[in-house]
Amino acid sequence: MKIKAGIIGATGYAGLELVRLLLNHPQAELAAMSSVSFEGKRLSDVYPAMRQIEDRILVDEDTVLDQCEVIFASLPHGLSQPLAARCDAAGKLLIDLGADFRLKDEEAYHQWYGGRFEDQALHDKSVYAVSELFREEIKGARIIANPGCYPTSAALGLAPLLKNGWAETEGIVIDSKSGTTGAGRNLKENTHFPNCNEAFGPYSVASHRHTPEIEETLTRLAGRRATITFVPHLLPVNRGIVSTMYVRLTGAARPQEAWALYEDFYRGEPFIRVLPQGQTANLRDVRCSNYCDISLHPDPHTGRLVVVSTIDNMVKGAAGQAIQNMNLALGLEETAGLGMIPPAF
Amino acid sequence: MKIKAGIIGATGYAGLELVRLLLNHPQAELAAMSSVSFEGKRLSDVYPAMRQIEDRILVDEDTVLDQCEVIFASLPHGLSQPLAARCDAAGKLLIDLGADFRLKDEEAYHQWYGGRFEDQALHDKSVYAVSELFREEIKGARIIANPGCYPTSAALGLAPLLKNGWAETEGIVIDSKSGTTGAGRNLKENTHFPNCNEAFGPYSVASHRHTPEIEETLTRLAGRRATITFVPHLLPVNRGIVSTMYVRLTGAARPQEAWALYEDFYRGEPFIRVLPQGQTANLRDVRCSNYCDISLHPDPHTGRLVVVSTIDNMVKGAAGQAIQNMNLALGLEETAGLGMIPPAF
Amino acid sequence: MKIKAGIIGATGYAGLELVRLLLNHPQAELAAMSSVSFEGKRLSDVYPAMRQIEDRILVDEDTVLDQCEVIFASLPHGLSQPLAARCDAAGKLLIDLGADFRLKDEEAYHQWYGGRFEDQALHDKSVYAVSELFREEIKGARIIANPGCYPTSAALGLAPLLKNGWAETEGIVIDSKSGTTGAGRNLKENTHFPNCNEAFGPYSVASHRHTPEIEETLTRLAGRRATITFVPHLLPVNRGIVSTMYVRLTGAARPQEAWALYEDFYRGEPFIRVLPQGQTANLRDVRCSNYCDISLHPDPHTGRLVVVSTIDNMVKGAAGQAIQNMNLALGLEETAGLGMIPPAF
Amino acid sequence: MKIKAGIIGATGYAGLELVRLLLNHPQAELAAMSSVSFEGKRLSDVYPAMRQIEDRILVDEDTVLDQCEVIFASLPHGLSQPLAARCDAAGKLLIDLGADFRLKDEEAYHQWYGGRFEDQALHDKSVYAVSELFREEIKGARIIANPGCYPTSAALGLAPLLKNGWAETEGIVIDSKSGTTGAGRNLKENTHFPNCNEAFGPYSVASHRHTPEIEETLTRLAGRRATITFVPHLLPVNRGIVSTMYVRLTGAARPQEAWALYEDFYRGEPFIRVLPQGQTANLRDVRCSNYCDISLHPDPHTGRLVVVSTIDNMVKGAAGQAIQNMNLALGLEETAGLGMIPPAF
Repeated sequence: MKIKAGIIGATGYAGLELVRLLLNHPQAELAAMSSVSFEGKRLSDVYPAMRQIEDRILVDEDTVLDQCEVIFASLPHGLSQPLAARCDAAGKLLIDLGADFRLKDEEAYHQWYGGRFEDQALHDKSVYAVSELFREEIKGARIIANPGCYPTSAALGLAPLLKNGWAETEGIVIDSKSGTTGAGRNLKENTHFPNCNEAFGPYSVASHRHTPEIEETLTRLAGRRATITFVPHLLPVNRGIVSTMYVRLTGAARPQEAWALYEDFYRGEPFIRVLPQGQTANLRDVRCSNYCDISLHPDPHTGRLVVVSTIDNMVKGAAGQAIQNMNLALGLEETAGLGMIPPAF
Repeated sequence: MKIKAGIIGATGYAGLELVRLLLNHPQAELAAMSSVSFEGKRLSDVYPAMRQIEDRILVDEDTVLDQCEVIFASLPHGLSQPLAARCDAAGKLLIDLGADFRLKDEEAYHQWYGGRFEDQALHDKSVYAVSELFREEIKGARIIANPGCYPTSAALGLAPLLKNGWAETEGIVIDSKSGTTGAGRNLKENTHFPNCNEAFGPYSVASHRHTPEIEETLTRLAGRRATITFVPHLLPVNRGIVSTMYVRLTGAARPQEAWALYEDFYRGEPFIRVLPQGQTANLRDVRCSNYCDISLHPDPHTGRLVVVSTIDNMVKGAAGQAIQNMNLALGLEETAGLGMIPPAF
Repeated sequence: MKIKAGIIGATGYAGLELVRLLLNHPQAELAAMSSVSFEGKRLSDVYPAMRQIEDRILVDEDTVLDQCEVIFASLPHGLSQPLAARCDAAGKLLIDLGADFRLKDEEAYHQWYGGRFEDQALHDKSVYAVSELFREEIKGARIIANPGCYPTSAALGLAPLLKNGWAETEGIVIDSKSGTTGAGRNLKENTHFPNCNEAFGPYSVASHRHTPEIEETLTRLAGRRATITFVPHLLPVNRGIVSTMYVRLTGAARPQEAWALYEDFYRGEPFIRVLPQGQTANLRDVRCSNYCDISLHPDPHTGRLVVVSTIDNMVKGAAGQAIQNMNLALGLEETAGLGMIPPAF
Repeated sequence: MKIKAGIIGATGYAGLELVRLLLNHPQAELAAMSSVSFEGKRLSDVYPAMRQIEDRILVDEDTVLDQCEVIFASLPHGLSQPLAARCDAAGKLLIDLGADFRLKDEEAYHQWYGGRFEDQALHDKSVYAVSELFREEIKGARIIANPGCYPTSAALGLAPLLKNGWAETEGIVIDSKSGTTGAGRNLKENTHFPNCNEAFGPYSVASHRHTPEIEETLTRLAGRRATITFVPHLLPVNRGIVSTMYVRLTGAARPQEAWALYEDFYRGEPFIRVLPQGQTANLRDVRCSNYCDISLHPDPHTGRLVVVSTIDNMVKGAAGQAIQNMNLALGLEETAGLGMIPPAF
């Protein structure tokens, strides 16, 4: 019998992507979906692409909780904490795509999101889940903090350097570019077509909420305090993130062995592709898939290594990694339901 | 044991799409792929999106023929006729994505493509395969002419009217718009990014090679001679076709019952979605899927019905329909390997 | 001394385009601009592209009326009628980019826009102003109804046929495609980037408000009742309209002389380019300019002529034609301020 | 009488942009244009956007030299050196949009471009011409090296810091993103629409030819050796460059006074817009204009200043700056012919 999975917040972009993936998952079934904005409507009323595919009615959060064993939540900040308490009490697995459980440092959470940790015990139970980096903790976890899209691209791109002491950890430059789905389905000035098409620029320069999340993760990987300058940009494409990262190397590093370092680190990983020397990552090649492509570019001139990491922000950066984490948490095949091949065009 | 399928011409866009679909097909396996231009290379050398997914070497046509029971061919005009002879002799199923077997009228073929029918017997055996319209003939066929992308959108959009005598068959206007993948992977002036982006216009006005194919099919559906004015346009998107079709109605037609007519005609079809009154088809909703969406718009002012039909040119307009036809020809579940859900964004 | 021109509704897209054009006009100066939504702000606060170029404060309508001799109005339906009364009383030239004075038939206006003609005398004074087609009337006019974008492309494309009795006037098919600026600066679902990018489809099929405006104009040109089926589509580009028009020819027509007919009709016109046989109009070639390109395509097969007409919806379809009309009304050089060369990329 | 200007290499993208600008220049006339690929054709045969605007025949290089006083050259590497010799002998002003005279260091030229300095005297006469930074040298110069597009954006963005000793000059990170016109009009895999649309990634990572040009300029501005890590990316837009630059500040710097520093430095400059605190540069706001927008973003967390600089690669990054340099060299009004207002959409 299939696992009953439910989605709270199914009409946001990450929610819809979860629907798509769950409908094709061999061992889970999408049992219920809720939406505050569209409760009582069909998902296909909101997204005509889903006609004949998913015509069920959007219910409320309580119904999802009642009917499902695994709860995916894609909610505004602050709403996942009370939900986690309910899931915990009811013995359900919560995979939270919001920010409530991503930071371990309550002060940082307060500073960047404005809220407080309502129950420290839940935070202690929760696992921050970049699947490849924290796999052992994810197995059996019951509250899973699914990472942000930018932090996923950054952490996967830098982990081999940080774990091996190759990188100076102060002031890593992370220049990221994201497609517009990262800004969500709500109408905004910066994603109004004539403002966004034939346009490009940074936003939230050195002040984006993913900064503390990236720093916490890099610090943990490095075993010592890491700081970053993080600048996201808005790309005129629907999907995808490219992070171009500039790392000063330590004495321990041997730039010409960077490829070997990464290949060793990610050997056997089904979703990480370390590109061979001379190739360059491009979001085109990972779109609509759960892959993370990483390319490496030593700059002997300045003693830096440039690391380029690219993912689909909606898949590996959100719904795909959430499915991967469900698979891990429940002991399923890690790749189940994630066989999407990037379309290339 | 899985059916061994092979692709001749695997590095063109339709070829790559076939690869993607076959790799996820539950009852077929991709046994071999050929490419004249890239023989000896890996498919992933040509399309980096395929790294770790399909790294096998591209072989020659003979090897594909040797190793496979089902041959998908995506070749320039004229090359499929000799291939069909070989497949026929060897008892293999050929699904031809080129134009060689699409037209039954040799004079039309000669006029529009310049060649001749080399062996009329092969043409007699071949089946023109819009899956939903000619399903019974496709079952058990051994030479399948997979329809063109524009003709698929037009025939599916107009069939209910023509089969029921609702449409005047002289001078139907078909105004179609296609994404750039329709122009193929070869570099061309009109698909050079700065020429194509922020640009739009028709091409091959009233002179496109798909004109006779559409007319043959409409004539066959109507049971009397049908003529069209067909104007394709190039859209600055990767995928998708929208055909906006203008039909003068006969006395038999009752415009307000158009939705019922279409719903009856396509009842139970897994890949045809007749949109309810008030909704409008958009290529966004079928992209990367095998769906054909059809919306209907009576214009009482002029006594016309406007029919809008949209497909993904690479899927329902090429590789997806080819898989559907393989499934039909071999008696597999018709939807096998075609469960792709359009991503909506 | 320069003519003092003012804009009421300067922060809409047509308003901003007027600002751009007036700032480079050799004989007019932009004296004042109003905006209901942004009164008291600078135009460059709303459009950062205008920093250092136009940093004046947006005022109210009364101030514009006080300070200017020529008033350009870009307002929602219904608001231009009272404004026209004020301009008329004050002896000022009004160039209205809204719909209030476009239709001569009050019943049609009521049916499509919901309002009434408040003062028939003003409507009698007003001139519907496709510059090339109604030039003599525009000279000296004091209330100018600047045509809609789609109607401009349609009327310019069909005028030579209709004036010369070449076209059957019943049921002309006009299949138009517009860039997203046509939908305006207000945020809407259909111009949210992820909904609009990699998307395409029709809207308001056979029910768009420009239908009666086009029919009135074609009827006037033909000298007998003309009807159309008009279907607009939304293109994923910022600017431009392409109208593909399907005309059944009368016995008077000689298709091979179509180019000569058009060249004669538009001889000496600075902004109309009749393309030579074998070439096809594309919005790329008129973007950001006041040109209208027209290409002709006989279809002997069905006895139709396909006419393709393309303009920049914001320039020839709005602000550019408004300037051209001001020039005509005031006896200035018709091309003054309109020397923009389309950038080609 | 107007100055006679000519273009050698008029059918490349920079060449066409020069045509557009010269046709609207009040004090210069476009007297002749050459093209090796299209000699004998009309410019409007190559670019249909130019129909009726510029229908003259493309001639050969000699004719341009004969007929013109000012020569703009947009040629492949190596071809401008012999041309400069001819211009010098004939007393003509050469504005070279190629790379031959950009580098003062012959070894660097040899390393990155493969050629040699054929006549050092010509190089000594030549002036590297970022208009705002080297204005005094440009006045009266006879061989002008028009800077590369990336170097223009970088130099303008960093000059105030470097001239004032605010920046650590080792290892400045320059992460740049360019529209596709930067890759030119020749067909290439990476600018084939389906490869480039819905795609994004870096290229020539830490190995782009503009690296030594940027370093020479920054070194000169700083008065001490500057090194950079430079990574360009290809954006799916037609025009525009955004450079996001990461600078470690020296003890001399007072980040909160950065805006004042830049405003002082660029006070009175007609084409440089230093954005106020809180605003962010976007290529949308400079497209099709000669502006360079600069925004500043201190990152107290890491002691860095992030500088964002954006230009239109075809205008301020090529043809526009070339016109500005002609104006300076000949003592014309510096802004003559450069009044283009960015369209905002």
